[in-house]
Amino acid sequence: MHQLTANDPAELPESTSDVKIGYVGGGSQGWAHTLINDLLQCTDVSGRVALYDVNYEPAAKNAELGNQLAGRDDVDADWTFEAHHDMEEALADADFVICSIQDPPEETFVHDIDVPQEYDIYQPVADTVGPGGAVRALRAIPQYREIAATVREQCPDAWVVNYTNPMTVCTRALYEEYPDINAIGLCHEVFHIQKLLAEITEKYVDEAEDVSGSEIDVTVKGINHFTWIDEANWRGHDVFQYLDEELEDRQPIPGFEPGDLDDEGYWTNHHQVAFDLYDTFGLLGAAGDRHLAEFVPWYLDLEEPEEVQRWGFRLTPSSARAGDGEGPAKMSRYLDDEGAFEFTESGEEVVDIMRALLGLEPIKTNLNYPNVGQTPDLTEGAVVETNAVITGKGVSPITAGKLPDQIRSMVQTTVTNQETLIEAGFTGDLDLAFQAFCNEPLVDIQRDEARDLFAELIDLEREYFTDYDLENADVLAD
Amino acid sequence: MHQLTANDPAELPESTSDVKIGYVGGGSQGWAHTLINDLLQCTDVSGRVALYDVNYEPAAKNAELGNQLAGRDDVDADWTFEAHHDMEEALADADFVICSIQDPPEETFVHDIDVPQEYDIYQPVADTVGPGGAVRALRAIPQYREIAATVREQCPDAWVVNYTNPMTVCTRALYEEYPDINAIGLCHEVFHIQKLLAEITEKYVDEAEDVSGSEIDVTVKGINHFTWIDEANWRGHDVFQYLDEELEDRQPIPGFEPGDLDDEGYWTNHHQVAFDLYDTFGLLGAAGDRHLAEFVPWYLDLEEPEEVQRWGFRLTPSSARAGDGEGPAKMSRYLDDEGAFEFTESGEEVVDIMRALLGLEPIKTNLNYPNVGQTPDLTEGAVVETNAVITGKGVSPITAGKLPDQIRSMVQTTVTNQETLIEAGFTGDLDLAFQAFCNEPLVDIQRDEARDLFAELIDLEREYFTDYDLENADVLAD
Amino acid sequence: MHQLTANDPAELPESTSDVKIGYVGGGSQGWAHTLINDLLQCTDVSGRVALYDVNYEPAAKNAELGNQLAGRDDVDADWTFEAHHDMEEALADADFVICSIQDPPEETFVHDIDVPQEYDIYQPVADTVGPGGAVRALRAIPQYREIAATVREQCPDAWVVNYTNPMTVCTRALYEEYPDINAIGLCHEVFHIQKLLAEITEKYVDEAEDVSGSEIDVTVKGINHFTWIDEANWRGHDVFQYLDEELEDRQPIPGFEPGDLDDEGYWTNHHQVAFDLYDTFGLLGAAGDRHLAEFVPWYLDLEEPEEVQRWGFRLTPSSARAGDGEGPAKMSRYLDDEGAFEFTESGEEVVDIMRALLGLEPIKTNLNYPNVGQTPDLTEGAVVETNAVITGKGVSPITAGKLPDQIRSMVQTTVTNQETLIEAGFTGDLDLAFQAFCNEPLVDIQRDEARDLFAELIDLEREYFTDYDLENADVLAD
Amino acid sequence: MHQLTANDPAELPESTSDVKIGYVGGGSQGWAHTLINDLLQCTDVSGRVALYDVNYEPAAKNAELGNQLAGRDDVDADWTFEAHHDMEEALADADFVICSIQDPPEETFVHDIDVPQEYDIYQPVADTVGPGGAVRALRAIPQYREIAATVREQCPDAWVVNYTNPMTVCTRALYEEYPDINAIGLCHEVFHIQKLLAEITEKYVDEAEDVSGSEIDVTVKGINHFTWIDEANWRGHDVFQYLDEELEDRQPIPGFEPGDLDDEGYWTNHHQVAFDLYDTFGLLGAAGDRHLAEFVPWYLDLEEPEEVQRWGFRLTPSSARAGDGEGPAKMSRYLDDEGAFEFTESGEEVVDIMRALLGLEPIKTNLNYPNVGQTPDLTEGAVVETNAVITGKGVSPITAGKLPDQIRSMVQTTVTNQETLIEAGFTGDLDLAFQAFCNEPLVDIQRDEARDLFAELIDLEREYFTDYDLENADVLAD
Repeated sequence: MHQLTANDPAELPESTSDVKIGYVGGGSQGWAHTLINDLLQCTDVSGRVALYDVNYEPAAKNAELGNQLAGRDDVDADWTFEAHHDMEEALADADFVICSIQDPPEETFVHDIDVPQEYDIYQPVADTVGPGGAVRALRAIPQYREIAATVREQCPDAWVVNYTNPMTVCTRALYEEYPDINAIGLCHEVFHIQKLLAEITEKYVDEAEDVSGSEIDVTVKGINHFTWIDEANWRGHDVFQYLDEELEDRQPIPGFEPGDLDDEGYWTNHHQVAFDLYDTFGLLGAAGDRHLAEFVPWYLDLEEPEEVQRWGFRLTPSSARAGDGEGPAKMSRYLDDEGAFEFTESGEEVVDIMRALLGLEPIKTNLNYPNVGQTPDLTEGAVVETNAVITGKGVSPITAGKLPDQIRSMVQTTVTNQETLIEAGFTGDLDLAFQAFCNEPLVDIQRDEARDLFAELIDLEREYFTDYDLENADVLAD
Repeated sequence: MHQLTANDPAELPESTSDVKIGYVGGGSQGWAHTLINDLLQCTDVSGRVALYDVNYEPAAKNAELGNQLAGRDDVDADWTFEAHHDMEEALADADFVICSIQDPPEETFVHDIDVPQEYDIYQPVADTVGPGGAVRALRAIPQYREIAATVREQCPDAWVVNYTNPMTVCTRALYEEYPDINAIGLCHEVFHIQKLLAEITEKYVDEAEDVSGSEIDVTVKGINHFTWIDEANWRGHDVFQYLDEELEDRQPIPGFEPGDLDDEGYWTNHHQVAFDLYDTFGLLGAAGDRHLAEFVPWYLDLEEPEEVQRWGFRLTPSSARAGDGEGPAKMSRYLDDEGAFEFTESGEEVVDIMRALLGLEPIKTNLNYPNVGQTPDLTEGAVVETNAVITGKGVSPITAGKLPDQIRSMVQTTVTNQETLIEAGFTGDLDLAFQAFCNEPLVDIQRDEARDLFAELIDLEREYFTDYDLENADVLAD
Repeated sequence: MHQLTANDPAELPESTSDVKIGYVGGGSQGWAHTLINDLLQCTDVSGRVALYDVNYEPAAKNAELGNQLAGRDDVDADWTFEAHHDMEEALADADFVICSIQDPPEETFVHDIDVPQEYDIYQPVADTVGPGGAVRALRAIPQYREIAATVREQCPDAWVVNYTNPMTVCTRALYEEYPDINAIGLCHEVFHIQKLLAEITEKYVDEAEDVSGSEIDVTVKGINHFTWIDEANWRGHDVFQYLDEELEDRQPIPGFEPGDLDDEGYWTNHHQVAFDLYDTFGLLGAAGDRHLAEFVPWYLDLEEPEEVQRWGFRLTPSSARAGDGEGPAKMSRYLDDEGAFEFTESGEEVVDIMRALLGLEPIKTNLNYPNVGQTPDLTEGAVVETNAVITGKGVSPITAGKLPDQIRSMVQTTVTNQETLIEAGFTGDLDLAFQAFCNEPLVDIQRDEARDLFAELIDLEREYFTDYDLENADVLAD
Repeated sequence: MHQLTANDPAELPESTSDVKIGYVGGGSQGWAHTLINDLLQCTDVSGRVALYDVNYEPAAKNAELGNQLAGRDDVDADWTFEAHHDMEEALADADFVICSIQDPPEETFVHDIDVPQEYDIYQPVADTVGPGGAVRALRAIPQYREIAATVREQCPDAWVVNYTNPMTVCTRALYEEYPDINAIGLCHEVFHIQKLLAEITEKYVDEAEDVSGSEIDVTVKGINHFTWIDEANWRGHDVFQYLDEELEDRQPIPGFEPGDLDDEGYWTNHHQVAFDLYDTFGLLGAAGDRHLAEFVPWYLDLEEPEEVQRWGFRLTPSSARAGDGEGPAKMSRYLDDEGAFEFTESGEEVVDIMRALLGLEPIKTNLNYPNVGQTPDLTEGAVVETNAVITGKGVSPITAGKLPDQIRSMVQTTVTNQETLIEAGFTGDLDLAFQAFCNEPLVDIQRDEARDLFAELIDLEREYFTDYDLENADVLAD
């Protein structure tokens, strides 16, 4: 037996008092603020955070904010923050590296969404798979190679935590460049499904009150954003029997009409796709519907965009992706008014994970990690979504077993595409990339049109493809 | 070394003088006539042919024709023909069993083509994959179980040769029912591509004249009708270098406009799809374009049916499938006029194969056979298209090696569907069958519409689904 | 995230108050007493224990003892004990089944040890592998089939915990008979190695005091009694670096002379074999040396039995195995003197495991379980030693990754033997069993002598082989 | 179908008139003379042979002999012979490369045989496995790396034919160094078993007279010298039924007594081991007994060397290996007397294979080739013995299917050892090599003695281990 309880805090390992965290993309106003929030509430680990960003200024602002907050009276934690112009410096001797980066949406993401739409390909997210996801992956691979190479050079034993999409390809690129890297990818989607199952549990189990998502013990298999659950348990109760009851209540599926969601936000989610996948294939799709729908050709085969509302979700227009206008104002307010920043329980796990890896409290969670047997019927070494136990010894994935044949077939199609994109990204071969592009389930258009679409996207984002052999790519030839 | 030359005819094995061939579907006027033609030109094997058909009369007519022709002066071969009311009798102690059956097209095939078209799914053939192919597979499985069970009972060591489509599923069903069966499936499509490569060889190699397709040595991998060639050789010449030259000449691909083929027959084939697959994925698609196009969503994603002509082939209307009106008249003519039947070189190989299996002349050809290592990256035991050496020891598949990743992904999707259909057919589970149906690449329509389509097809062909559990199939529920 | 902490005891699941445990081999005086000891100290689960044994009397005595102790003032737990004549009754509706059985040693075990010795094959344990282990496995398989069949019939969802050797084969037989069974096998050997590593940690880490074995987090791979550790961690410290230092101190290995251990007990263990395997192959053998030595031909290739002392362990004479004379006297004392039985901390985990499976406190431990990906380079489905997380959802093995090639080769040889013995046991085919027998690493004698040895063992234990086809076994023919 | 008959000689490919063969080890008096014999009887291919040897003189003599014979009146073939001082020159632009090399036996082979015998390890051959085979493999790997590197540089598309033992490791080293190499290994052992089966066929089949081994169609699986046959056929007759009859006649096995073979030659073979393996494991061992016995610990576990005669074969003393004194005299005779050399039918296939690869007559034979699916249960990429079809397109292995589990276990043990030796040879890591050495089935001695033996062999042959890291090898440390 190995004990799962926390170590006595009186006996803290020495290693917890001088931790260095390198942060790539440290100018962000999302994850960076969350990290500041979480670290400054963590009192049994201390150290410093080195923020690096291609744009130095926002990183410097974040450092300033972090240090200012660290000095507040209501903060007991002991962390300092610093901004860097070089990634090498930021990562030198780091114990942990966090990655959260994004290309300017107006020059990239907006095209990824809008151009395919001209070819009648609709993508609610466009950051994982589909034409948009594939192109985003190709852009990200060279950047993640650089990060991995820097880790190998500056902090070869550090644990690297990735938050950037496409999650799978980014994390996989780290391992392809530096096979001995210690890296994981973190994503929220499964937590939302645990929350849904917690609500169902509360509804059907008498003694269940205020059940949190983390109390639902789920098996997790598949890949990020196309994850599947085949077992869920709350304190010995099989939650899937309640799910079956619940689904009878919720028939018919799809249960909406075009227009029904006009007043809801772009991110609304009624789990119609997740439930339909459960009805048809027997396992619950464990991500938001907007993600799930992009992995199969059925839900987004639309005559008119609003038809997608039948499935209880909406398309996100590219305008909603083009930069976050509120960020700078919020930052100014935080810096001007020391009390403006309110510490919250973020729900993020990165600090829990760091504590576990430092030999403090072990945790079990889902994350993205190379397949070393946890899903034996998917490609070995591909990055999969997986439950894992995290201790001072590291990350130990938990076996999830095989997928049912038809689900495996769907998942493996994307796994193969992702592996091909990695190969294309590492060799700079866009003709190879185009093979994967054609086999994206959303790319069910005429073959010659697919080529036009691919070439158009590359052309529009040309400056982000300097690592590719554009000259000799047949797919780009006239 | 094992000699590949023919045995001296003076030393014919005893076993060649009393061969029994059982024929399931013996009332056909296609394969049965070809078999009569070929056997009556084979003088080193003799015996009898037992014809069985669900309709006795046509089988009896075929027997009459065979015996009449066997008596003709220009025939030296020694074969007799007999018709049977029972499959058991026809197969009792058979050395070989030939299967070539078809449900009445008006009650089945016509729906398989027409109903999906109402859902904007166009299928040029509809007998292998796609909605039509899937439903045809489900109908065929119980029939092939019965054949396999009869073989196990009546002639367990016989070699069974299948000609019926869907080739892969029919052959696979034989092995699923009776794993020790000796069965192969035969199909022409690769020969046509060998012919194409022979023509290209003649064009580019000076000394090459009158090159026959069988002189082109090709590697064959994949599955029936979605077969791939990655090497072709004529007497030490690498034919693929000439193919590359030829393709430059034939650009652009696709090279036709809608309407261009209006005056060509339904079966016209300009290899545009095969060449496009070669351009994109690097291996040559080795089947007719009408077949190849059904395994991917691209070529048949049509606004209007005639758009398909861009790729150099046409859709076959269901009317062209509804029974062959000329058969009976031709048969009358043959029976009335002894000299009317003209013996030809059929190009079929079944008699060559029988001779090889009897220990006469070894041959090497492509056929359909369970995967025992010849394509190690496709499902073990699935039926694949494969080169094989055939001798008195039996059928020995030749290794073909792995497929490139993206081609493997496309092929494996269909392999998985076929394996699922087999499982569904053996358990009678239409909900499971529907999972495979959804994952047919041509079924890229809204999920609830796919369900309507599936249910409609089953309903129209209900009398052919008596072996399925229609009562409890959720997919058929209102 | 899924929480790993204990549920609040105030909210105990209903299911914990009426638990039934069936016990096969319930007349034992080892495990049965330990179970009584542990259950009567467990206050948050209650229920009854149904003891079954081929010999009813000892089971009845155990029930009497259990009930008597349950009534003692110092016991707060709520358990009752009952003895049964039928296994069916004992297992009816059980939530848990415990198996701990043994054939009469004088009629079996004694031969397993002594007869091979006449052929110069020395086995310190003879209950796992080697000629003795193989024959013991063959005897056990029919018994474990019967247990599994009874579970399927009487309590199909029960969790079955096996303690009997050969651990792997017994547990594997349960799954072969009833593939949907929930079964695990428990063994102590890894705990002893954790203890060793804890001692080394105490020696080399300043702040490490009173480190318990369970604090050492180890990776576990391989099979029972031939288990391997490639990583060990204590609160973030890599313990293997201390192991390397320690081994330099302990050179040379082997470090003893014949005769050195004459005054030590038969079970003495100086880890010389474990360390030698570490030196040679790079991973630490994680079982007692007496077990490890039986999986390879080297350590037991002896001219004289006492030579084995060079490696710091002794052979156990069969006399030490022939029945435990003290049992009955101890039992009488316990029953006569209510206070004689002293409750102890047993170190056994079965009650912790039951509590975890009931949805109380999750635990992580090593156990024996079918290979579903945790060791992807060993046979799928074979029973392997593995770390696992145990929760209300069940047993989730943790991936351990591949073994180094040469270790894998050694382990897989035994895995294949065990799988062959299972097949032989289920078909009753002793000729097949003999193939595995020949490939036991200890059976490196002349082939015809191996046959004589095998036949002699079967003959001596003939009454335990009634499920085998002795008539038609070529290996037994004169 | 692809035709298997010879091409019409009137249409010889141009490529057959100017063939260059490079010969590494061209000073040999065995294979080189055979090649001269065979080439000078081959009239439809012509060209030149470039002989290279570390000793130039014998190669020059061979060239002289070849040219002299080529001019004889009874020779119609058109070949010239030349000797080279550099391997590069000899291989430049070669179409074929033949390898047949040997270290001076007195400095190597003699130790490989004699030193293990001091540790009671008896090896009848010592050139494939066992302590001698392992050490020979380590010596050969650097030499074969050099050959492969030269091929890559000088003649990347050439077909390389290896004759040197250890066959598997030498051929495997070629592929490890240059994965795109076209290489095969040729060995006679299977032919001898075909001959045995031909004799049995003649005995039991009435019409069978003068059956040659090549008429027996056998399935071949496993590895060189540890090959297995599970099917044999002569013109439709299952030869294994006759083998079963024959074996009943030949009982008991072993059927000899020590001393029985004192008057027979060292190479005598009574197939007792092959038959015993067939009796025990169900497949026929398809190599000479002296080879087969070295792959398992049973037949060579001897108290006294002559005991091995029980199994119908003898040990070969190292003196019989130390150089062939007759060679130079024979060569002088040949050169002095033009008519002294008599052309014979050698039974070698290398010329047939060259003709097939040049697009002349296809052949089917067994050879050594990387595992690409022909034996799917052995390591992918390992070199295995395999049937193959050879045509102008190249070498196409024929699938042989899986081995029975226990045979697979034995074969895979050696495959793993060979793969480990390759890794050790490429990294220069003798500690890794020692892991494989320990797992040689013949090395069933005390672990510390095995280390002494290994170190002693390396020390005696030190000058052949210059590519290894002797300094840092723990296994060589005192």
